[in-house]
Amino acid sequence: MRFLYPALLRPRPRGLPFSERKTKLPSHIYKTFSTTLYRAMLTTEFSEADVSALRADKDRLAKDLHESCQWGYGIRWGEGSTDTGMQRLALSEEDKSVRHWFIKTMKDLRCQITIDEMGNIFAVRPGRRADAPATFIGSHLDTQPTGGRYDGILGVLSGVETIKRMDEMGLETEGGVGVVNWTNEEGARFPVSMISSGVWAESIPLQRAHELKEVPTVASLPTAKSAPETMKSALEKIGFLGDVPCSYKATPMAAHFELHIEQGPHLVSAGQRVGVVTAVQAYRWFRLNVIGRDTHTGTTAFEHRADALYAFAQMMVKAREVAASKGCLASVGIVEAKPGSVNTVPGTVSFSLDIRGPETALVAEVETQLRADFDAIAAAEGAGIGKPCRVEWTLDFDSPAVKFHEDCIGCVQESAYAVVADAPVADTKSLVRTIMSGAGHDSVFTSKRVPTSMIFVPCKDGLSHHPEEFCSADDCATGASVILQAVVRYDRKRFA
Amino acid sequence: MRFLYPALLRPRPRGLPFSERKTKLPSHIYKTFSTTLYRAMLTTEFSEADVSALRADKDRLAKDLHESCQWGYGIRWGEGSTDTGMQRLALSEEDKSVRHWFIKTMKDLRCQITIDEMGNIFAVRPGRRADAPATFIGSHLDTQPTGGRYDGILGVLSGVETIKRMDEMGLETEGGVGVVNWTNEEGARFPVSMISSGVWAESIPLQRAHELKEVPTVASLPTAKSAPETMKSALEKIGFLGDVPCSYKATPMAAHFELHIEQGPHLVSAGQRVGVVTAVQAYRWFRLNVIGRDTHTGTTAFEHRADALYAFAQMMVKAREVAASKGCLASVGIVEAKPGSVNTVPGTVSFSLDIRGPETALVAEVETQLRADFDAIAAAEGAGIGKPCRVEWTLDFDSPAVKFHEDCIGCVQESAYAVVADAPVADTKSLVRTIMSGAGHDSVFTSKRVPTSMIFVPCKDGLSHHPEEFCSADDCATGASVILQAVVRYDRKRFA
Repeated sequence: MRFLYPALLRPRPRGLPFSERKTKLPSHIYKTFSTTLYRAMLTTEFSEADVSALRADKDRLAKDLHESCQWGYGIRWGEGSTDTGMQRLALSEEDKSVRHWFIKTMKDLRCQITIDEMGNIFAVRPGRRADAPATFIGSHLDTQPTGGRYDGILGVLSGVETIKRMDEMGLETEGGVGVVNWTNEEGARFPVSMISSGVWAESIPLQRAHELKEVPTVASLPTAKSAPETMKSALEKIGFLGDVPCSYKATPMAAHFELHIEQGPHLVSAGQRVGVVTAVQAYRWFRLNVIGRDTHTGTTAFEHRADALYAFAQMMVKAREVAASKGCLASVGIVEAKPGSVNTVPGTVSFSLDIRGPETALVAEVETQLRADFDAIAAAEGAGIGKPCRVEWTLDFDSPAVKFHEDCIGCVQESAYAVVADAPVADTKSLVRTIMSGAGHDSVFTSKRVPTSMIFVPCKDGLSHHPEEFCSADDCATGASVILQAVVRYDRKRFA
Repeated sequence: MRFLYPALLRPRPRGLPFSERKTKLPSHIYKTFSTTLYRAMLTTEFSEADVSALRADKDRLAKDLHESCQWGYGIRWGEGSTDTGMQRLALSEEDKSVRHWFIKTMKDLRCQITIDEMGNIFAVRPGRRADAPATFIGSHLDTQPTGGRYDGILGVLSGVETIKRMDEMGLETEGGVGVVNWTNEEGARFPVSMISSGVWAESIPLQRAHELKEVPTVASLPTAKSAPETMKSALEKIGFLGDVPCSYKATPMAAHFELHIEQGPHLVSAGQRVGVVTAVQAYRWFRLNVIGRDTHTGTTAFEHRADALYAFAQMMVKAREVAASKGCLASVGIVEAKPGSVNTVPGTVSFSLDIRGPETALVAEVETQLRADFDAIAAAEGAGIGKPCRVEWTLDFDSPAVKFHEDCIGCVQESAYAVVADAPVADTKSLVRTIMSGAGHDSVFTSKRVPTSMIFVPCKDGLSHHPEEFCSADDCATGASVILQAVVRYDRKRFA
């Protein structure tokens, strides 16, 4: 007995990998929707084999992903229509456009949209239980100034694909399933990464986030030609300053799953297909100023200089040496030397320092060592004139090491094994590994409030934050299939 | 017998250090000026003692100098009204104002004004022989973005004081005496220093100079808020694109003398008062690009990076080491890392490199060594991924070592000895030394076409290109007295 009114129904199941299984579903799974009865497939009543058979639509995912990249495409590196990087800074005009595309796409899928005070966009496909918070798939649509098409974007688009797939199959979950686009994850335009999931987790005060100014180094981009914007003014400018409080209390989640390219070479060099992310390394971001003395390049002997840029150069070399000795990373992404004239020794240098390591304590050790080393470098430069350089540190961001939730990790692991099971190798489980994330992600903050984990898929050469960042359509679909299954598994686990 | 018609005359001599001497001048020194006879003191008929007694007016020089600094005063470093630096970039609104002040001042002194195609301003006080080119005193009124009140400015103002002193004493020279303000000597806004004396000397093509664009690093200054200007558009904008060809042929000189602060610590640390500049060290300016690969700071192991900024840091450290080993200098004043994001390893770095040394060949040796060393540094960074960094060099400016003209050096040396002769020390000549200039000056280019030399006076701590750059009123006046005498001596030598 089937009551099918196509015009009023969600798209009917077609091309399902379930083969005959759908006809074997228990006959009581019918549901009232508006005034129409239709047959739903309630995932909590699936068999393990039903769940393991779920797959994302590779072609549709690729099509949607590149469609979303029409706003803010960046540097071209190949001849194909999608062979460009991305330059979609947070809250730029390009970001505004893709946000409207995202909202329209999710509304077309009958999702409920919420926009909070940080411009985070939550789109929820309701489940059977109206009062249960949704399980979320989340990531970000903003990019680095010279970023690629996958970092963040794949995570959001895998959520879109999950909802589309559930709709077309007529799948019904107990709790809802949501997709969230977090604002300014990259920290490229506004120099605190993951700031909006941080506010949501109540780890970062809303006011601090709203007052954060865009960095001057991207002032040359079209998005930042006028006076520096704050996050609040930029949110207002593009119409995304929502009125819902940005908090896990106002917009609760049952869990948060995030699919991401690995951004490192481990999976790709081992020929593995899925990384089950169990943890995120610790990191700290600093801004440093070195203060020396402006003087003439042509007339000032080396021993009479307090050359802030020369001190910086020594510091950067030292930072790598110290970090490497402790199995950590130390990187400088931004440097500015003033006054900036060919024949003036720079008297002031500002730079960013990003220290990362597998344990919070190791990052602290590197910092302690570098504070001593940098002081010594500064003291030596300018000692000859009794006016040594000095160095000032400001901590911008501190993200301790994170361990993800075992329930979420379990769902991802089972899903990963299921998705790679049909690979033409003897030991398909060898295609999956557990892994630690080197980069921070919005999942770092969601993990403070709700069960969270992540899925990595390989990217070419492990390269990201670069226009040539690339993840094949197959790898994208593998990741999206894992997250689709993980969300279903988590829903089943919650309501078992 | 004296025919004095005060209203028509140049200001009458007053307060002369000549004491009685003026009354002993030969009685035939009378001259027709307009329709009036007046008594002139023809310097070619002076005694050596007359010349040696010439002095600048210390208070007037200081007053004029600081008056000219009202346009473009910079960072304050003390409580006195003149305790600020200068920020008067070439062809800015501030530069325009001081140019108008200079022209008005010189016109009030009945000088003839010429403005050429590079905005160089020549003000000539005619001598007895209308067809003989003038002996010039020259320097520049533009400054570094964080410059001081003496570099360049003292040179031009010593010319103004020379003319004022000659006028008030009724001195008459055979050839005229001129003062020239050269455009953009600093090379701070338009990144070729001494470009306009270079065009005048026909060492730099006019078109290249006109098309030169202002550097982006000063784009944040008020003078450069709009789209980058070229020198030509900037000249037009402030109304100083003259129609006289910029050439030593169109605006000839008999000689060029330049008074400048030393910009180094030799005079001040030895307690000496005057440097007789015999030569200028060689230098070359380069722009370098290091091309690596943008990648994520959190996920990319050191051995997988092609970090252009890390390569730069090593290069800067190496540059000092190599230059020092050859008795040369190597300096980086400008550095720009792209894309400029905290968590992206910079894939591109551009920087300036300024190599200087006492001999042209030594500078070439440093360059050769650094080209090899930089290549090696670049090749090592990124070798782990088979995509090493590479480095590109562009020569922006090449100034071989310069030897000044012995006639000019002689005039300066005699004048210096004369000016310091009344100092309260046993061996007054010990207060004067010959010296090599570390910095380039417009005199480098004038020396290619006409006899040239320079005079240095001490500045505090040898500091320049800094707001706290300081030369005492006494030292300024000493220098101005030397240049006044040197010009008179040169005039006497020419027409002896």
